Amino acid sequence: MTVDLLNIDTPALILDETKMDANIARMRDKARSLGVTLRPHLKTSKCWEVAKRQLWTPQGPATVSTLKEAEEFALHGVKDMIYAVGIAPQKLPRVAALVRRGVDLKIILDSVEAARLVTQYCQKESLEIKVLIEIDCDGHRSGLTPDSAEIINVARALEAPARLVGVLTHAGGSYDVDTHEALLVRSRGERDGICRAAKKLRDAGYELSIVSVGSTPTALTDEDLTGVTELRAGVYVFFDLFQAGVGVCQISDIALSLLVTVIGHQMEKGWVITDGGWMALSRDRGTANQKIDQGYGLVCDVHGHLIDDLWVSGANQEHGIISARNGRKINPKDFPIGMRLRILPNHACPTGAQHPCYYVVNNSLEIKDCWKRFYGW
Amino acid sequence: MTVDLLNIDTPALILDETKMDANIARMRDKARSLGVTLRPHLKTSKCWEVAKRQLWTPQGPATVSTLKEAEEFALHGVKDMIYAVGIAPQKLPRVAALVRRGVDLKIILDSVEAARLVTQYCQKESLEIKVLIEIDCDGHRSGLTPDSAEIINVARALEAPARLVGVLTHAGGSYDVDTHEALLVRSRGERDGICRAAKKLRDAGYELSIVSVGSTPTALTDEDLTGVTELRAGVYVFFDLFQAGVGVCQISDIALSLLVTVIGHQMEKGWVITDGGWMALSRDRGTANQKIDQGYGLVCDVHGHLIDDLWVSGANQEHGIISARNGRKINPKDFPIGMRLRILPNHACPTGAQHPCYYVVNNSLEIKDCWKRFYGW
Repeated sequence: MTVDLLNIDTPALILDETKMDANIARMRDKARSLGVTLRPHLKTSKCWEVAKRQLWTPQGPATVSTLKEAEEFALHGVKDMIYAVGIAPQKLPRVAALVRRGVDLKIILDSVEAARLVTQYCQKESLEIKVLIEIDCDGHRSGLTPDSAEIINVARALEAPARLVGVLTHAGGSYDVDTHEALLVRSRGERDGICRAAKKLRDAGYELSIVSVGSTPTALTDEDLTGVTELRAGVYVFFDLFQAGVGVCQISDIALSLLVTVIGHQMEKGWVITDGGWMALSRDRGTANQKIDQGYGLVCDVHGHLIDDLWVSGANQEHGIISARNGRKINPKDFPIGMRLRILPNHACPTGAQHPCYYVVNNSLEIKDCWKRFYGW
Repeated sequence: MTVDLLNIDTPALILDETKMDANIARMRDKARSLGVTLRPHLKTSKCWEVAKRQLWTPQGPATVSTLKEAEEFALHGVKDMIYAVGIAPQKLPRVAALVRRGVDLKIILDSVEAARLVTQYCQKESLEIKVLIEIDCDGHRSGLTPDSAEIINVARALEAPARLVGVLTHAGGSYDVDTHEALLVRSRGERDGICRAAKKLRDAGYELSIVSVGSTPTALTDEDLTGVTELRAGVYVFFDLFQAGVGVCQISDIALSLLVTVIGHQMEKGWVITDGGWMALSRDRGTANQKIDQGYGLVCDVHGHLIDDLWVSGANQEHGIISARNGRKINPKDFPIGMRLRILPNHACPTGAQHPCYYVVNNSLEIKDCWKRFYGW
């Protein structure tokens, strides 16, 4: 018996390889046309089979969001990584273990306090750890503002064998806009901010080999990255309804979907009930604040074709409620019990994280492979 | 070196055993005082070490939300289970495999269509599978309304060797209220609804051994369950901020928390940044629609004591942003880099699901055990 979308257990995470490959090619071409290195963020997939298709070379460069990701990808031979979340001293032994194994893992920080802790650790261990200073280009999270005098103080606090190698920023605020013009402002702000910070450090005599920017929306909008050495982006590998809402992909580009089975109906309400609840879709409702709220997801047939005006209007832990947006009642006969559907998610990162593996399909219902994901920290 | 909350890797899921034990005892006493059997829902923990403390006997009874749960708990010897999500025909082979191994796994359904599919399967396999009809007592999800004529049609469509053994309802609508009076209405509605459905079936000549109700809020509110045989509830084992908002527990009863580490600050904004983002807390923002929005969670010191007016006001994948509700700026000196904090979650079920294990503590910082969780379907 062929293993296909009609007979595997549900809910199950489906990955359309053709769409993924196109998304990967698009970002690779974009980085090439901008003349910068692509350092893909591997946090979205947490899967070597996906990651290796994104990487420029098998050794990297790559970005990770957890030390678990760094450790897993290092096992597959990835050497050049940035752990792009501010470091805490308790995490340094795991960083050091990787560095001692020959992994070129770089860390980031944004304070004199953290710089001193890293310096102390490196001196105690007689170990060089490479550091980037995190810059805040849009006020959405961590980092020092590009014009902060504190940048130089942090650089000074980083003493050998700790070594400053660059600056990094992430225009996370780009997730909040949805026009090309607004994205251009974010993209330019990201580039200008990181270049000002880099200039400040170089003027003070520091050598920087890495000037790193990136978010999927700004990466796909960038027109000129003069002064920047590399581009980071993650969710582009699968895309999702949220990125479609931002305007940097089409709904037809989304490579990830949740395969579900119809388990019942509420006739009077016109609902179809499936086994795809929020445990399988995640609780992410990122599109709720966009122009078009996509509920817990849009509904496709088993082949991945969008169906009319259906959406997942509600979800419990293991139940998804599908209804029609225009208020019409869905005819239960069109969606018999046992029928298979595919749901496009709000956000690929949290939806993916709910699943042990990806079932890979390629222009047919047949499952050509099952790629394992890891999770945890 | 003692393994404790100051030196394990973060983010990490912490389980306060003393609080969990008190929550378990409270629900057990409640069921006993109502004169009904407690059939705990094991979907919250997905962990045998937790589940075995909730069960009346090592064989059950228990409720599960996935066949994976049924299979995992069956390996530990649990026999009497209800899979409380409407069945689809593709799932019957896994049900049958358990039944053939001697597991008394019951399924639920709410349509003639599903009843026929189950009957056909049981006849083809010459296998008895026990079935409960799902009743909808409050319009929130699945099930037939208590007075629906369709209930008898479903019972008729269940032919031997499929066997009707009972009725089941879940007052999920109780999650939307927050006063004792409103909870009492939900609790009585749940009981009255299921009793009307049971009477209808018994009047038609069907024998029912199970009349099952339950949700954590109604279970803790019930005053009289005459006519009901058993009570189901799940999240009570840990409780969470959402249940505190409903009013059925105190914040101090919450047994589950996320241990995080301070990784930075935004001085001008008065933010503390931690490594506990939405990947570790989940995207659940259930309290957003309650009287008190608790953000992504409330902040405790490492000992579990609530801190002033702090909350997790924002979260990215691996970043948590802690701020003060009253607008004051948090002094970074009070929360140095490397400091450990504990976050009380909105909803124990999705937060738990992000983690491979529970680190168990008991009135100290020392970790007395690590209990594995399973995930997937």
